[in-house]
Amino acid sequence: MSWEETLDYYGGLIDEEVKKFLAEAKNAAKAYHPFIEKVYSNIEEFVLRKGKKLASCSTLLTYEGYAGEIGNRILKACVSIELYRHCILVHDDLVDEDTQRRGGKTFHRLIAENYDARLGYGTGVFVGDLMYALTLQAMLNSGFSQEKLNRVMLLFSEGYRNVNESQMLDLLFEYKEPDVDEWYVMASKRAASLFETTLLVGGILGNAPERDLQILREAGMHMGYSFDIQDDIIDTFASLEQYGKPPGEDMSLGKKPLHIIYAFELADRGGLDTLTNFMSKERINSDDLELVKAVVRESGALEVAKEKSKEHAEKAKALIAKTSLGDKTKKFFDSMINYIQESLDWYK
Amino acid sequence: MSWEETLDYYGGLIDEEVKKFLAEAKNAAKAYHPFIEKVYSNIEEFVLRKGKKLASCSTLLTYEGYAGEIGNRILKACVSIELYRHCILVHDDLVDEDTQRRGGKTFHRLIAENYDARLGYGTGVFVGDLMYALTLQAMLNSGFSQEKLNRVMLLFSEGYRNVNESQMLDLLFEYKEPDVDEWYVMASKRAASLFETTLLVGGILGNAPERDLQILREAGMHMGYSFDIQDDIIDTFASLEQYGKPPGEDMSLGKKPLHIIYAFELADRGGLDTLTNFMSKERINSDDLELVKAVVRESGALEVAKEKSKEHAEKAKALIAKTSLGDKTKKFFDSMINYIQESLDWYK
Repeated sequence: MSWEETLDYYGGLIDEEVKKFLAEAKNAAKAYHPFIEKVYSNIEEFVLRKGKKLASCSTLLTYEGYAGEIGNRILKACVSIELYRHCILVHDDLVDEDTQRRGGKTFHRLIAENYDARLGYGTGVFVGDLMYALTLQAMLNSGFSQEKLNRVMLLFSEGYRNVNESQMLDLLFEYKEPDVDEWYVMASKRAASLFETTLLVGGILGNAPERDLQILREAGMHMGYSFDIQDDIIDTFASLEQYGKPPGEDMSLGKKPLHIIYAFELADRGGLDTLTNFMSKERINSDDLELVKAVVRESGALEVAKEKSKEHAEKAKALIAKTSLGDKTKKFFDSMINYIQESLDWYK
Repeated sequence: MSWEETLDYYGGLIDEEVKKFLAEAKNAAKAYHPFIEKVYSNIEEFVLRKGKKLASCSTLLTYEGYAGEIGNRILKACVSIELYRHCILVHDDLVDEDTQRRGGKTFHRLIAENYDARLGYGTGVFVGDLMYALTLQAMLNSGFSQEKLNRVMLLFSEGYRNVNESQMLDLLFEYKEPDVDEWYVMASKRAASLFETTLLVGGILGNAPERDLQILREAGMHMGYSFDIQDDIIDTFASLEQYGKPPGEDMSLGKKPLHIIYAFELADRGGLDTLTNFMSKERINSDDLELVKAVVRESGALEVAKEKSKEHAEKAKALIAKTSLGDKTKKFFDSMINYIQESLDWYK
């Protein structure tokens, strides 16, 4: 199987478990209130939307790479990872006032359209919380030993703390110009933290040697940085056809991707004027975006950001190679990371 | 010691532990970002505001009632309970757009006043999440056995799920008229759930016999109902002097306390018109409030709600008496519940 076929196949197994888990919650809610039952239906539809399950499949493959097989318990644990990822997205979309997520409405919009903005917004806050509680419940009921589960609880609480600190900084950066170091503080707690969590959960549950856990933590961090930088480059440089939604949306909110921070450092006076002007606009059109892309490109910032992403990818691959993970898992991560590296060249 | 002196004394011990715990978080943040450090300072000020620590002191007294003494580990666990209660308040205040909480600004207002509404609102979402992560971390690092911590993690995830389902229903009830059964579904997951959690955490960590845990769960539920009904009566019937803030604020948001639901059932046609008119208003003044209070009083709804609160209080006391808790703890709960019962008579 190619790594993409692996993602499809394993993702399908996880989806089946997600359905079972949420069917139970839905049935329980049916007995006490139709609105809560509907909320669980919405959660199900939201979590099961089409998309690559990089996080939960990374947990599953890491587990398999140590345990040698996969079974019911680890699939239940992967339900928890999927819920974790999505509870973060619900609050992220809410605060950024996004309307679309993976081909459907964002969660608060789903509710708002049936009632009003206040109920949508409030339910969005509480559903994000609820989904984090479900994350913990799915994991605690996965059947692993108490000792392993408590280690995973520590990871989830550390991870959730980091993610939310990162979200606050990301928001703060709309109000100030961060430098590269500050961007790394924020990013270390975002995708980097998520990948650390997903690899470590797989490692702990799969009985990885303690030495490997430290390596997995670092590998996850570098994978996260590499993905994060690439993801931001896509948001700026992808075409509408490549991206499926208008590019530049994050920047129009005032977000500061790494390639923009580098551009502020590297651009000449004319370039700086263009950047400053762009960042102060409430709405941007495609002409504005083309001007900024030119500055990012011509100042060398795009190339520097791509190089950073590739450096992190190389480090992640080297670290994965040093673990005692099985060959199948090593190959999976290698192909996945190579794909990210190669895809950087599509955006110019 | 009277129960109030006990609350003061034990509350002080818990405050000291809260300070230590948050000082660590603040110091860690200092090394990476001043904004996050400031957020932890704000959390500290928010959690340490003056007020009765009913939840964490209930945990502490329940623990003492089984273990016979209190030590460092249970005080750390009580930090977790305080954080738990406050993480719920942060999101509650945010969604209700409240500006004041226990003599200070609500969390999102603290941030909003230094920046703007968007940063206040977004930080409010993420800080509530962060404080729940801190809740789990404080508990997981309290030093109790893996087995006990695992059980407490299950309680926290069940409790947080319930609280957030309840919050959604509470919000939904602004859009529809709930009946008494629906109110109880919502309330069973609110204060009732919080008291269940606090008593059970104390019981589990203090080695309560399994038989007692079931009793504590029920006792906590009845304490919660009794408090919840009383709390709502206060919000409507307290004077500005008694309450320290303008009464009627919850109802002006469209909340439906139990005494209002009973009033809708018991009022005559004229009373119903007054209630319906009141509920449709965006802003209420003190004349409106007096009219509604008269309907609630004269329809008998106030008396029925008070009786309900007292019934739950009696059940809670009877259940506490059936446990093998030590005398000091039994007396504490008895006095606390008696106080609630008696205070109902202050509001007319």
